[in-house]
Amino acid sequence: MAEDPLVIFTPSGKRGRVPAGTPVLAAARRLGVDLDSVCGGRGICSKCQVSPGRGDFPKFGVTVAPGALSAWNEVEARYDRIRGLKEGRRLGCQAQILSDVVIDVPPESQVHRQVVRKSASAREIVMDPATKLYFVTVPEPDMHEPSGDLERLAAALKEAWGIERLTAPLPVLSRLQPVLRKGKWEVTVALHKGHRDEAHRLIDLWPGFHEGRLYGLAIDLGSTTIAAHLTDLRNGTVKASAGVMNPQIRFGEDLMSRVSYAMMNEGGAAEMTAAVRDAISRLAAEIATEVGIEARDIVEAVFVCNPVMHHLLLGIDPVELGQAPFALATSESLSLDAAELGLTGLSDAARVFVLPCIAGHVGADAAAVALSEEPGKSEDLVLVVDVGTNAEILLGDRDGVLACSSPTGPAFEGAQISSGQRAAPGAIERVEIDPQTKEPRFRVIGCELWSDEAGFAEQAGTVTGICGSGIIEAVAEMRMAGLLDAKGLIGSAEQTGTDRCEAEGRTHAYLIHDGTEAGGPRITVTQGDIRAIQLAKSALYAGARLLMDERGVDAVGRVVLAGAFGAHISPKHAMVLGMIPDVPLDKVTSAGNAAGTGARIALCSVAARARIEAEVRRIHKVETAIEPRFQEHFVAANAIPHATAPFANLRAVAPLPDVSFNTGGGGEGGRRRRRRDA
Amino acid sequence: MAEDPLVIFTPSGKRGRVPAGTPVLAAARRLGVDLDSVCGGRGICSKCQVSPGRGDFPKFGVTVAPGALSAWNEVEARYDRIRGLKEGRRLGCQAQILSDVVIDVPPESQVHRQVVRKSASAREIVMDPATKLYFVTVPEPDMHEPSGDLERLAAALKEAWGIERLTAPLPVLSRLQPVLRKGKWEVTVALHKGHRDEAHRLIDLWPGFHEGRLYGLAIDLGSTTIAAHLTDLRNGTVKASAGVMNPQIRFGEDLMSRVSYAMMNEGGAAEMTAAVRDAISRLAAEIATEVGIEARDIVEAVFVCNPVMHHLLLGIDPVELGQAPFALATSESLSLDAAELGLTGLSDAARVFVLPCIAGHVGADAAAVALSEEPGKSEDLVLVVDVGTNAEILLGDRDGVLACSSPTGPAFEGAQISSGQRAAPGAIERVEIDPQTKEPRFRVIGCELWSDEAGFAEQAGTVTGICGSGIIEAVAEMRMAGLLDAKGLIGSAEQTGTDRCEAEGRTHAYLIHDGTEAGGPRITVTQGDIRAIQLAKSALYAGARLLMDERGVDAVGRVVLAGAFGAHISPKHAMVLGMIPDVPLDKVTSAGNAAGTGARIALCSVAARARIEAEVRRIHKVETAIEPRFQEHFVAANAIPHATAPFANLRAVAPLPDVSFNTGGGGEGGRRRRRRDA
Repeated sequence: MAEDPLVIFTPSGKRGRVPAGTPVLAAARRLGVDLDSVCGGRGICSKCQVSPGRGDFPKFGVTVAPGALSAWNEVEARYDRIRGLKEGRRLGCQAQILSDVVIDVPPESQVHRQVVRKSASAREIVMDPATKLYFVTVPEPDMHEPSGDLERLAAALKEAWGIERLTAPLPVLSRLQPVLRKGKWEVTVALHKGHRDEAHRLIDLWPGFHEGRLYGLAIDLGSTTIAAHLTDLRNGTVKASAGVMNPQIRFGEDLMSRVSYAMMNEGGAAEMTAAVRDAISRLAAEIATEVGIEARDIVEAVFVCNPVMHHLLLGIDPVELGQAPFALATSESLSLDAAELGLTGLSDAARVFVLPCIAGHVGADAAAVALSEEPGKSEDLVLVVDVGTNAEILLGDRDGVLACSSPTGPAFEGAQISSGQRAAPGAIERVEIDPQTKEPRFRVIGCELWSDEAGFAEQAGTVTGICGSGIIEAVAEMRMAGLLDAKGLIGSAEQTGTDRCEAEGRTHAYLIHDGTEAGGPRITVTQGDIRAIQLAKSALYAGARLLMDERGVDAVGRVVLAGAFGAHISPKHAMVLGMIPDVPLDKVTSAGNAAGTGARIALCSVAARARIEAEVRRIHKVETAIEPRFQEHFVAANAIPHATAPFANLRAVAPLPDVSFNTGGGGEGGRRRRRRDA
Repeated sequence: MAEDPLVIFTPSGKRGRVPAGTPVLAAARRLGVDLDSVCGGRGICSKCQVSPGRGDFPKFGVTVAPGALSAWNEVEARYDRIRGLKEGRRLGCQAQILSDVVIDVPPESQVHRQVVRKSASAREIVMDPATKLYFVTVPEPDMHEPSGDLERLAAALKEAWGIERLTAPLPVLSRLQPVLRKGKWEVTVALHKGHRDEAHRLIDLWPGFHEGRLYGLAIDLGSTTIAAHLTDLRNGTVKASAGVMNPQIRFGEDLMSRVSYAMMNEGGAAEMTAAVRDAISRLAAEIATEVGIEARDIVEAVFVCNPVMHHLLLGIDPVELGQAPFALATSESLSLDAAELGLTGLSDAARVFVLPCIAGHVGADAAAVALSEEPGKSEDLVLVVDVGTNAEILLGDRDGVLACSSPTGPAFEGAQISSGQRAAPGAIERVEIDPQTKEPRFRVIGCELWSDEAGFAEQAGTVTGICGSGIIEAVAEMRMAGLLDAKGLIGSAEQTGTDRCEAEGRTHAYLIHDGTEAGGPRITVTQGDIRAIQLAKSALYAGARLLMDERGVDAVGRVVLAGAFGAHISPKHAMVLGMIPDVPLDKVTSAGNAAGTGARIALCSVAARARIEAEVRRIHKVETAIEPRFQEHFVAANAIPHATAPFANLRAVAPLPDVSFNTGGGGEGGRRRRRRDA
């Protein structure tokens, strides 16, 4: 008897011999090749499409004969007739292996296919979603061997797909009987793989074979904004992203003021919980409408957020997070029904996964950044800074990861800044100041032109304010142009030689844009603005420095700026401000919204959920609030860029004029108390 | 070195040697002796009280020396001072074993103590509730080793009690932090042992040591009435029982009319679901008020019900149960949050357990009867009949159990009877007819006297109607008195020789009581009443006979009448009617509300839940609706007691006059179509 045919799958390279007549799908399963199938080999779903090779494959020592695969059968022919099969493609479940063959599995036929991420630095997401579709034929009821429809569905899923345990939430169970009968006992089910050792859950179902709409939301629940990414769970595509302001802002701008609100007002925490849950439900409905789906098609949501947002989302009073020892009610990841969170409009049985928190001040958002940026896999020592109202800071490499948070406050987001506003059309986002003339030019969101270019006024419309990245650039440019001294004092018109430095009480302000003639505002950077930025950047730098102390280093290998805002910070300006430790500029990269990316990764992969759960247990938390050295670092970091650190890399590329505008008139340049202690 | 002391525990007889100085509780644990403890050996809860023996125990070959146990220590002395320790009792966690000793564990110190049931025939309930109390000390948070309060509680429970996994529903989690702090890190928690392999759930918690109120509801959800037994989960005591009418009655008297209502009316099933859930919530609140507890102290409910009630409770349209093949949406037991069932007012995290259904017509109520009566353990062949609007019938012994249901309709409950009413004060419940004078006497609910005894009129008040047991006795007595022939025809005054047989159209009625002079109703048994009873009893008998066919027997060893109503049926009268197969009268016993008892057993024992889940898989279901022999048996059983079966045991003890009142005037005595086919 001749040897069994040899089959080699690409790109995996997996190979083996199978009996002649084995369908390609069966061979793939036997050899552990990642080949998708929803219909279980009935020639309906076409997820198992493959491209068989022809001719010589010297690399594999194989020649593929013309009849290596069986000819098209009726099922394949019908599929091609009705839905069309791409040139050279075969249905893996129908084509049988007759002699040696090389078979390519195209990316779209792989279950665990990778999703390409835009950011160059980023790793791929390997699809392994919790919720998947399965097509199955359920035995009809037999009144002599009575059993429930659910129990027969469970048995069929076990038989066809090896699903061991199945539970059905009541709202889905109530639809089971009509759907099974409508589909003549063929059904497509969406099953949610239980967290840890939970049973599979029946999330949704459709009569017969159904391509199935399966969407998930990756939600980055920030103190200021709530960002959601609507993701197709079948392939990881982000269909739309949307954001709303966190309505809790009306109870307090920053975290500690919200904790205070909860402490001072009976029912205050519940009020904030209701507000944020309602906002999330509305955001889900809006984003669904935007892409033309029903919110009901959303079967999963993954949340990342800081600990205070985490507790308020869960309906837990965050009071303990406002005082040492900053104890979390729960730190581990959570797997819940969306209904338990009071989220409305989603799929009846929609599930929620909340990433684990690292500590009382370092939340699931930091965990998400760790999942996205993987500092624990870095070869060089990497500092990851997620800049928001609260900054999450990670420092680590393969030898270990340290984490802390630092209360930067909302200045980096344009709040507490005299002309500050959030990033929206009309906001100044880039600033340059000529070191000679001290004249500024700028760009606003929504316009490609600089303010000194022709047509700017028409294109840009009203300049309404200055956003987070704009204020950082403005302050850094003022420092480089000699309008601001190292201590953070703005010079007078006399001291700086420009009328744009205007007196404002006993201090000065720098005029960036006077829009009053056009009916717009005057936009200045005031001494108060400088102080707000100094407080924020000192907190950020001190946190990073504290981790470096803990690690016993004076320098880091590279810096990753994360956070929606991090994406827009120019590394040079950040360094001039002394926001981050001094490294060569080309070692500073932006990871975009790393927390949101981490949420997306967790949404698309149960393996990633397990990975970050394990990683969080290994991350060592450093508590800034009680660390005396934090205060020291904070004070030294008040100067721009820093009172003592040399910032040699920076000085090689940026002018830092040695000016001083202190006229001995007051304590303005002195230290401020830290926000958290206020 | 001397041998370690020998310790012998009674009543278990477990014995072994332990190192001198071992506390009694520790010795009990080591030897697998069932000794309770909530506080984990801190001398707080006193659940581990024991009675040490003194002197000679020739049976065990042991002499207990005076100093066999250590003297009272401070903890024991304080406990006695404050709360009082019974004479001769010691705290097992404090008293140390110093030399050979015999120690008795009193029933109240046993975890798995038995609850004595009133009914003589019944087995004991062994306490093994799903929800139990645990006292534990939780490590305080450490900001340098951050972890959530929940995770530290879980670790403490694992350490102290071996609890492997813990989850906390959000409403309970939200109370964790304040409770832990109020109790200074000592806490008593109520944990619900997960169904099958689920994790333990945190159901409730109290600061410090707490005796804990833990109540459960055993609910028998019938078509006509909803009965609830409020049970103390610490010891199995029924604190109160209460019942309400099932409000679904307004949508249809019997099961099939409710299924029809769901089919004919859009949203009809949902309407019935809402009605019954609301009634259950109100019943829970009422029963709690009755015993002076809060409904919030109810942490569990166990439901038994027929399949239609089961589906409507769960919010599933019962339409499939109204047509062959009578497919259940789900047949296995269910473990749910009470909130999922829309039950309100109970403990935030209250759990619900629903017993499994046997088949589309044989529900969780039949499973509960099987759990209570255990036909599968019977040595003789036992027929268990649960009489209600639908009759559940079980036939079996150690060799196997058969089950079916039969649509008796509500006649046995006094419905569809001209003077029928439910069992309530004023209802005739017992009837005797003098075979000579044909004069009746009767008793009504709420009065001890017979109607021919002095003072009856004053004590009984208005006689309002006739209840289920009353109508059965009346019909049987009419048969024995020669007023009713075997075909079910009531004779005329002429034929019977009594004016109480009144003409009513072309048929006759028998006057039991004329209350018109006292402003009450005339109570008669009409020909229509007889027909209703005949339909009901034929269905019941035919079901039983079908199981006997299936088993291949012509007689059963004994009969158990179950159902709230079964408790009130006189065996002789039931036999005269031919409701049940002929057996010696002393082989007919009543099990009371066996379904309710089954619910109580499941409420008190997770082992019993597992037992009935396994047993249900073994019970063989016989479907009456499609079995041609059922129709034959039904027709033959129309006669009173039966057209063909000899009923020899009955004839030995009851007169069955051979009268015939058929005057050839019509088809009244002919067959009726079965209700299910109507």
